[in-house]
Amino acid sequence: MGRSYAVVGTGAIGGFYGSLLQKIGLEVHFLLHRDYEHVKQHGLAISSINGDFTLPQVNAYNNVKDMPRCDVVIIALKTTQNHLLPDLLPPLIKQGGIVLTLQNGLGIEPEIASVVGENIEILGGLCFICSNKISPGKIHHIDYGQIQLAAYGTEGITNTMRQIAADFEQASIPIQMEENLMLTRWKKLVWNIPFNGLSVVLNAKTDAIMADLHGRKMAEQLMREVVAAAAGYGLEIKESFIQQRLEDTVKMKPYLTSMKLDYDCHHPMEIEAIFGNPMRAAQQVSVPVPQMTMLYQQLKFLEARNW
Amino acid sequence: MGRSYAVVGTGAIGGFYGSLLQKIGLEVHFLLHRDYEHVKQHGLAISSINGDFTLPQVNAYNNVKDMPRCDVVIIALKTTQNHLLPDLLPPLIKQGGIVLTLQNGLGIEPEIASVVGENIEILGGLCFICSNKISPGKIHHIDYGQIQLAAYGTEGITNTMRQIAADFEQASIPIQMEENLMLTRWKKLVWNIPFNGLSVVLNAKTDAIMADLHGRKMAEQLMREVVAAAAGYGLEIKESFIQQRLEDTVKMKPYLTSMKLDYDCHHPMEIEAIFGNPMRAAQQVSVPVPQMTMLYQQLKFLEARNW
Repeated sequence: MGRSYAVVGTGAIGGFYGSLLQKIGLEVHFLLHRDYEHVKQHGLAISSINGDFTLPQVNAYNNVKDMPRCDVVIIALKTTQNHLLPDLLPPLIKQGGIVLTLQNGLGIEPEIASVVGENIEILGGLCFICSNKISPGKIHHIDYGQIQLAAYGTEGITNTMRQIAADFEQASIPIQMEENLMLTRWKKLVWNIPFNGLSVVLNAKTDAIMADLHGRKMAEQLMREVVAAAAGYGLEIKESFIQQRLEDTVKMKPYLTSMKLDYDCHHPMEIEAIFGNPMRAAQQVSVPVPQMTMLYQQLKFLEARNW
Repeated sequence: MGRSYAVVGTGAIGGFYGSLLQKIGLEVHFLLHRDYEHVKQHGLAISSINGDFTLPQVNAYNNVKDMPRCDVVIIALKTTQNHLLPDLLPPLIKQGGIVLTLQNGLGIEPEIASVVGENIEILGGLCFICSNKISPGKIHHIDYGQIQLAAYGTEGITNTMRQIAADFEQASIPIQMEENLMLTRWKKLVWNIPFNGLSVVLNAKTDAIMADLHGRKMAEQLMREVVAAAAGYGLEIKESFIQQRLEDTVKMKPYLTSMKLDYDCHHPMEIEAIFGNPMRAAQQVSVPVPQMTMLYQQLKFLEARNW
């Protein structure tokens, strides 16, 4: 029998990947909150560029105490909910189990480690996906979908990574295994920090930022600060990577970042995971990140007035 | 007979101070553009905390060629109009005349000097005033009104300064003579750069910025960059000055900055005078001003989309 999966946070990310895992016959248990009643009754429906499908029946829960312990716990909450992890994780984890967090930003795994203790392997998965929850239990997968997978606390490709990757690939989820989780996280921040932040503060999509001389300069400067901060931890990100990310962004369809969507919907933004933790990490190794800092402060200011 | 004055730009600043000078019997000539017909017919009306008054008849012009040369030319245009100065100034200036610019920002006097040539004394006046043009020819003076006056290209209190100050004081305009124009300009930027910039980018009044932990931090950081840039030119601004300006701002009535008013009215903002020139001045002496730079870029981005 295959591995069993618990999905903590059944939204655009957790609902999508969890559904694909269930679709190939794996045992998946979904934790829900607001959408619990609806999903318990009607299941999950995915409309995807790769083909639509429905799961009329899923294992839906609104309380971790009702859930079985699983081999793998996937965390797909927004990081703004991570204060709930001490309540959510311990009842779900098996002796020798695995936690896979699909969350953005920095400082995620140490927080999880402090909750689950030793003997539990933690993997980080960075999702390059464009998907939205459009109504309870209905997820629209618009584009992309790859996960970059890496192990926390050790370098290289681990056996656990290979096992998870095998499940995901069988479920038609493109996986790229990475040797260094922190490098992978900082590289993702190279894009996330400028574009999530500027899209909110300037009320702009990616194409407008890139089309404007000053918008593009700001993005590039912020990218350089991220690269400098990563270098403060001995993690090398090449100049060509910055240029490539800028060029990729020019070629993307005009894109409203997830942080801008949150802001517009008056949802909490993931400011601490994506900005606060990297900023403090840079400060800890005395790398100046003045523009990242101001963008963080601007977001905090706007968030406080967004209710 | 007293000195004759030409007022270039008869708005909230030029119209107010020019009217006070005419009120005590000095010869004043007003250059207007949009409001010319109205003011020619109806004159100027001032409603002021110091008392209302009207000037039913003023010397109004819509073309410098019709104006007499004057002893003093007051420049009260917005700096965004300074590309017009090569056409406006030469026909107005007398041999041995004086130019007094009441404009904000940096790099104003060198621009005027390049237009008027030598032998023309240039004074800078920094206005601490809250006034608005509420309709053609009607100016509402809400609060304050002092002008800090200093000479361009020389240190100390000059005779010319004393003469102008005497006229203004007779007209009940509070004048403070300053020994160092550049120091006076940089000190004004200590307030203008954070609050003009942040008020636009964050859509906030001064009180909201100061009441928010991150808003106040941003203001303070930006003030420190201005102080560092000034220090790069050997101009000392004390730490106590920053703290005093922050405390003053807390005590002010909630205030929409002039740049925010311009932005909301879709008028050009004085970005280059207040941000671009100080930023480039800092770069010239290798003082890093990363947050001033990002604020400049954000304003340029927003301005380009504000039409």
